[in-house]
Amino acid sequence: MAVSVKDSKRAPRTEGVAAYMRDVGQRARTAARAVAKASSGEKNSALFALARIIEDDSGAILEANRQDLRAAREQRLEEALQDRLELDPSRIAAMADGVRQVAALPDPVGEMFDLKMRPSGIQVGRMRMPLGVVGIIYESRPNVTADAAALCLKSGNACILRGGSEALQSNQAIAACIQRALRDAGLPADAVQVVGTTDREAVGQMLTMPQFVDVVIPRGGKGLVAFVSEHARVPVIKHLDGNCHVYIDAEADPEKAIAIAVNAKTQRYGTCNTMETLLVDAPIAQRVLPELGRIYSGHGVELRGCERTRKILPQARPAKAEDWDTEFLAPILAVKVVDGLDQAIEHIARHGSQHTDAIVTENYSKVRRFLREVDSASVMINASTRFADGYEYGLGAEIGISTDKFHARGPVGLEGLTSVKWIVLGDGHVR
Amino acid sequence: MAVSVKDSKRAPRTEGVAAYMRDVGQRARTAARAVAKASSGEKNSALFALARIIEDDSGAILEANRQDLRAAREQRLEEALQDRLELDPSRIAAMADGVRQVAALPDPVGEMFDLKMRPSGIQVGRMRMPLGVVGIIYESRPNVTADAAALCLKSGNACILRGGSEALQSNQAIAACIQRALRDAGLPADAVQVVGTTDREAVGQMLTMPQFVDVVIPRGGKGLVAFVSEHARVPVIKHLDGNCHVYIDAEADPEKAIAIAVNAKTQRYGTCNTMETLLVDAPIAQRVLPELGRIYSGHGVELRGCERTRKILPQARPAKAEDWDTEFLAPILAVKVVDGLDQAIEHIARHGSQHTDAIVTENYSKVRRFLREVDSASVMINASTRFADGYEYGLGAEIGISTDKFHARGPVGLEGLTSVKWIVLGDGHVR
Repeated sequence: MAVSVKDSKRAPRTEGVAAYMRDVGQRARTAARAVAKASSGEKNSALFALARIIEDDSGAILEANRQDLRAAREQRLEEALQDRLELDPSRIAAMADGVRQVAALPDPVGEMFDLKMRPSGIQVGRMRMPLGVVGIIYESRPNVTADAAALCLKSGNACILRGGSEALQSNQAIAACIQRALRDAGLPADAVQVVGTTDREAVGQMLTMPQFVDVVIPRGGKGLVAFVSEHARVPVIKHLDGNCHVYIDAEADPEKAIAIAVNAKTQRYGTCNTMETLLVDAPIAQRVLPELGRIYSGHGVELRGCERTRKILPQARPAKAEDWDTEFLAPILAVKVVDGLDQAIEHIARHGSQHTDAIVTENYSKVRRFLREVDSASVMINASTRFADGYEYGLGAEIGISTDKFHARGPVGLEGLTSVKWIVLGDGHVR
Repeated sequence: MAVSVKDSKRAPRTEGVAAYMRDVGQRARTAARAVAKASSGEKNSALFALARIIEDDSGAILEANRQDLRAAREQRLEEALQDRLELDPSRIAAMADGVRQVAALPDPVGEMFDLKMRPSGIQVGRMRMPLGVVGIIYESRPNVTADAAALCLKSGNACILRGGSEALQSNQAIAACIQRALRDAGLPADAVQVVGTTDREAVGQMLTMPQFVDVVIPRGGKGLVAFVSEHARVPVIKHLDGNCHVYIDAEADPEKAIAIAVNAKTQRYGTCNTMETLLVDAPIAQRVLPELGRIYSGHGVELRGCERTRKILPQARPAKAEDWDTEFLAPILAVKVVDGLDQAIEHIARHGSQHTDAIVTENYSKVRRFLREVDSASVMINASTRFADGYEYGLGAEIGISTDKFHARGPVGLEGLTSVKWIVLGDGHVR
């Protein structure tokens, strides 16, 4: 198949796209073996080279980005998307820094652990290995290209990156930097391939090549994630809703409760770990809600309350049924007064999205129950939901946040891009 | 629409089966929350009750099994399948023992680990949780019903068990024991549901209810596993081929090499961890192959060799290309002389099934390379491939052996039926 990664002018037709993607997949599969056995030193020198080349080539990247931005303006792309698309010298510096931070993380590949002696005499343990080939499908932000390439390379995986059509030129410019860095470090250029066609069929094809792709990670809006989940014949690490709760228990310290409820809602509105519903235990409602109401209104947060909430905060609009199930991603907060821990846990189980939920309480037994009975990717005690983040958790970097239970849950770092095999050390042992 | 043979009294049509399975799924989802928070004591008392009830009710189970066996004979089911189907007092005793062994295992649910302090002041760690609802699809052996129920219950999961149509009466009799045991322990009866229809549509439905089923585990022949993989819209833990290799390196201890090569092939022929191809490094071939040839021929093992093998062992038949890719599950062994470690690793990568592969060598650097570069679920040094087994690895019990890399790899015990969530312990911390 003739279409090269760079040659995006010649948009291939569907048959061509399928063949092109199979070729990309085959190359990734071959490169995966080499990168899986690459030493930490080789991988790190590729990453340091990449950071340096991104800085050195920032002129070319910015020029490519200007082409994308011109096209975006002509096509009247939404302002918010144009903002995400835009690169400037400080964003490029941040991109290079991010790559250096990944280089500084410990290499997960080859880690051995849990080596235990068995009665038979063999010693049995585990070794961490790359997954193989990781497909990443993303939108707008061109920095994901460098970021995802770095994480996949560090974890010993080959990757196939498919960015948004609006960022094609920017992504290709960054891809050129990656290619040079891989070559400089003596690693196969096919270890990171940036798909050179914007044909949507390329995504469909990537999702249905289990022989070449071990996992797909969609990073983007709900439409993209839903499309990927629906069509994938390979495993998917995906992020759906973040309908996060804070429950202020009757035995909460009111000061901590107020600080957490304010931070969880107002620190940022558009993030998936922002609180969307506040649950308040009836005995403490009168103590905390009036002050919270004042602070929220100072931040311009619209409150939507249950009837008991509105008796205390008349300014709250009446909550509708769907408000309990909504990820507002906006300065809007649903507030409900509940009778104790059981009702709070029940509300979270029914309306939550198993992303991040927090309790504020000083009661030990309620802490223990909340930790065990709330089945969310992150369960927090006396802390703001905003901490649910790979950097805050010490992962060093994050390829995404999983709302699945299978394989990886919550913030996914290098470890989520690996699997563990069994290793057996014997000395001539037989059964 | 295939009306089932056995369930002719109330043979539901496809619409009926779909509705029935959705009801089963909904009940499982509800029960899953209760069993997820059940204490270790409650789960263990259900398991001890189950073991006792199986023993007390062995008469009823054996009577149901006789009905299945009669029908199997009338339908001229293969001898091997009839043998797997048959229960006798010792098999029932083993079933009860198996359940008690699961009770004796440590409870994985609620385990907390890796609680580390972060610079922000929060403490971040992990907690092990059940997956939720586990669907298990199996054939013939009725003991899987008790075994799978015990493993799912111990790991805090609700389960939906769908056995083979030939074992329907036996499975229903064991299901009755499980129901009584759950009730005795105060756990919801819906925590373990044995599907009461043999309509194949029930399987199709189970595979496409992600809202009710968190993972499906097919336990059976390749046809079943292929069907499940093809149609599943939920995650699958599956076992495909076991094309296992032993590589005897030039620097192997010949005695260990011969002991391992004999055991890996001849201890049992029909198991997935049996060696199917022996790779011998050229410099040691003359030293080990003649003796191995004598021992294999004493065991009636048919050898299929490459040309260089046949110069040393003229009795070996010439290997065909497909022999290197075949899981014989029989007293047949493919033998190939190779030139060193690289060729061996290359052969395993090309022809193996990433199940279990072993090297025999005394050379440290080759050990290190083999461990890292062979990407199989189990990689062994100087030990027989036959050790690849949940009991030998210390898992206590095994729900299956996964040949996937995602989530669980190799023998899957209780841990493979769980996921880990993040827990955050703060003291009023905000970002």
